[in-house]
Amino acid sequence: MTARIIPVDPFELVVFGGTGDLTLRKLMPALYFRDRDGQIPPQSRIIGVSRTEFDDEAYRERVRGALYRHIASEDLVPDVLDRFCSRLHYGPLDVLDTEGWGRLHTALAGGDRRIRVFYLATLPELFGPICKNLAAAQLVTPDARVVLEKPIGHDLASAQRINDEVGAVFSENQIFRIDHYLGKETVQNLMALRFANYLFEPMWNAAAIDHVQITVAESIGVEGRGGYYDKTGALRDMAQNHLLQLLCLVAMEPPKILDKDAVRNEKLKVLSALRPISGREVRFKTIRGQYSRGAIDGVPVPGYLEDIGAQTSDTETFVALKAEVDNWRWGGIPFYLRTGKRMPLRASEIVIQFRTIPHSIFQPEAGEVSANRLVLRLQPDESVKLLLMTKDPGPGGMRLRVAPLNLSYAETFKVRYPDAYERLLMDVVRGNPTLFMRRDEVEAAWTWIEPILEAWRENYEPPKLYPAGSWGPPSAIALIGRDGRIWHEDEV
Amino acid sequence: MTARIIPVDPFELVVFGGTGDLTLRKLMPALYFRDRDGQIPPQSRIIGVSRTEFDDEAYRERVRGALYRHIASEDLVPDVLDRFCSRLHYGPLDVLDTEGWGRLHTALAGGDRRIRVFYLATLPELFGPICKNLAAAQLVTPDARVVLEKPIGHDLASAQRINDEVGAVFSENQIFRIDHYLGKETVQNLMALRFANYLFEPMWNAAAIDHVQITVAESIGVEGRGGYYDKTGALRDMAQNHLLQLLCLVAMEPPKILDKDAVRNEKLKVLSALRPISGREVRFKTIRGQYSRGAIDGVPVPGYLEDIGAQTSDTETFVALKAEVDNWRWGGIPFYLRTGKRMPLRASEIVIQFRTIPHSIFQPEAGEVSANRLVLRLQPDESVKLLLMTKDPGPGGMRLRVAPLNLSYAETFKVRYPDAYERLLMDVVRGNPTLFMRRDEVEAAWTWIEPILEAWRENYEPPKLYPAGSWGPPSAIALIGRDGRIWHEDEV
Repeated sequence: MTARIIPVDPFELVVFGGTGDLTLRKLMPALYFRDRDGQIPPQSRIIGVSRTEFDDEAYRERVRGALYRHIASEDLVPDVLDRFCSRLHYGPLDVLDTEGWGRLHTALAGGDRRIRVFYLATLPELFGPICKNLAAAQLVTPDARVVLEKPIGHDLASAQRINDEVGAVFSENQIFRIDHYLGKETVQNLMALRFANYLFEPMWNAAAIDHVQITVAESIGVEGRGGYYDKTGALRDMAQNHLLQLLCLVAMEPPKILDKDAVRNEKLKVLSALRPISGREVRFKTIRGQYSRGAIDGVPVPGYLEDIGAQTSDTETFVALKAEVDNWRWGGIPFYLRTGKRMPLRASEIVIQFRTIPHSIFQPEAGEVSANRLVLRLQPDESVKLLLMTKDPGPGGMRLRVAPLNLSYAETFKVRYPDAYERLLMDVVRGNPTLFMRRDEVEAAWTWIEPILEAWRENYEPPKLYPAGSWGPPSAIALIGRDGRIWHEDEV
Repeated sequence: MTARIIPVDPFELVVFGGTGDLTLRKLMPALYFRDRDGQIPPQSRIIGVSRTEFDDEAYRERVRGALYRHIASEDLVPDVLDRFCSRLHYGPLDVLDTEGWGRLHTALAGGDRRIRVFYLATLPELFGPICKNLAAAQLVTPDARVVLEKPIGHDLASAQRINDEVGAVFSENQIFRIDHYLGKETVQNLMALRFANYLFEPMWNAAAIDHVQITVAESIGVEGRGGYYDKTGALRDMAQNHLLQLLCLVAMEPPKILDKDAVRNEKLKVLSALRPISGREVRFKTIRGQYSRGAIDGVPVPGYLEDIGAQTSDTETFVALKAEVDNWRWGGIPFYLRTGKRMPLRASEIVIQFRTIPHSIFQPEAGEVSANRLVLRLQPDESVKLLLMTKDPGPGGMRLRVAPLNLSYAETFKVRYPDAYERLLMDVVRGNPTLFMRRDEVEAAWTWIEPILEAWRENYEPPKLYPAGSWGPPSAIALIGRDGRIWHEDEV
């Protein structure tokens, strides 16, 4: 069984930052796979743009090399690779310069009625200038869309400024603020589980759920992004977008329909219902950490200060938060969020922990009754598991055990899970922004994050050190432990 | 992984009807398997009793032959087989004769302090006389138990009479009225699912469940039991015991503890809450059928009249019932029950159908959203499946499909499921009657069944013919179809 593939309309995709890491590591492989599966019509073109001088052929060779590095050889079909590379073009351009845009105009001429996608895989400071220059060069057709990579700003004011600048050129429906976590198969499956099964929705509330955990753990350090990262930190870099977006999808009310306005209205309501954390509350509702020297998989790795080449820094590379959603559905139910670099492994997951049974009718020999738990894993592999108690088969008395049910696919059924960028790029071409962040969402997330940043400054404490390869500082365990709970991985 | 085996105490098991079909086909293989797994201590003996003249050796050969027929050769371990047969003894006895019991007394002498089990695999008319003679021969020790096979009577009065006669010799705690359906692994797992998972119990009621179906379908005909069957019919033979017992376990409130009194009190409450069906209601709440000539698996089979060698009979070989439980948990929720002979296949299952989602947020392309369904299969194989909707993996839009989750065992874990008789025989030795029917349950079941029998007589209609190999008369489909529902197998 293979998924049905419906080709998108012909498009021209202009990638600003066309030689950058994201483009070569994520976007090009994603586009290759969509081409391989027959979803990209013949006339479509992909135009890389950056300051470097290249010609089309040199760019094609560069992309080809990247595909060889980032795609398993069994997935590389020579014919498809050639076809894909023939779609590639390149235009050198200094986007801050108003000159040179004519060449892009020429390159796109004749394709006015095609879908035109401008993908800004650049620093956010460039979003405004690029949009302004696109408008000036009369490149913004009614069918154009612009894709913005995170971060959208570093606080509410800067996010508003970027949104204003981009919004001066593109209408909100043309703006696709990407958070690739929302394109994950598992996140989509969360929507299916919640809203296509009567079994879950009546239990999806404070009466039946004990708490929610969302973890985005990376094993890598700052990896050459030290300059950017040290000005940013984990709260801005990961929590403001990924963690809060995932929280929204878990917590939102059922939308009327699974479309851009209905879904994003519901997510906005969740963001607006987040209980503010400010003042001295940050001491017991937030934990900041910074990795020190340690080891990952037995390999010694340097600490954060060494990584960024500094004597001192109070930037957090780990943050744990206890968030609460002040509405009828979730009143009193904590959402524990955490993200960090140099964790023991790369693992992103959402854990919905249901209440424990109120009373056990079983004899002690039956064994312990664990609480039901729905575990949505986003990285490194994608899966959805439901942990239920069942009877241990056998002729003896009643003995219970946990059965981890795989909800991602039935028994032997197995398919390749498309990368999030594949789905999201096709959604951009289709003009479907449901899985992208709307302006008001981004700004509402900053509205909740900013008081935490302020309170950290006012109640200054340096981030707590944790050895690389650990799950953050012990106080992160205490954050959830104080409530009588433990982080999920401690149990498995 | 193998289940832990805890040996039972040494016992002596006297099987009345020791050469009968049930003994050779079910009881002996069950005991063999328990012996093989090391659950039967060395001193234990099994004594067959019937009118036929045999010596121990001849009986052992007879049982050995039966084991070869009814157990897969891979499961027959020669050493175990020899050990098992050496436990076997035989005593010829006419149970209606008061003479001859002395030999049984002698055979059991010296084992007074052992557990003593009298298994009555005989016609129910003999239950009273056997018990009386056991008492007269002073064989009923405090540690004795008696096992009664169904049927316990053919109406309320005869059931009460049997219960009185047995109860004059054995206390209620010594009486084990067997319904082997209750010993099924799947039925045990139903208890685990309902009461060890927070996810199910809050949804286990009229608010979340649409209806329940219980089917016990046999592909065989009356198979030489015509004389008995024609006086009995499907309602008495199957519905009064198996169907109602299964209904009780689905519908009962959580007992305080999983023990004999608590569980059976809850089952009794369900039986007492069954809405009576009487008078003209039988016309739309019950369907009687009788099989006519047809074919099973392409092989022609005779009709019921031919099978019993009669010109005419108004005995039902199929019955479908719409039962309702008048309490807060189940008000308004139908329990559709059906059982029949000469159905297309042997299949016993309980289907819990949850409500359909109240509103779909998905686009039409996502496909149909089926209602969640928990399917407990008891025969021919045992399994528990939960049917959930999940997202079809793939890069396209949201497409939904049914994922049938196997709750019986996790992924690759697989063990032999013990036969119900294995568990139940060990429960008898252990003195645990939780999975056996208490006197008041049997009588409460008859109290509900008897008005139906009366109403059938008063509103006489001959049973509707259905061809052997079909799912009963069309009116059985109409019974559930009038409520806008369909029987489970029609969909798979």
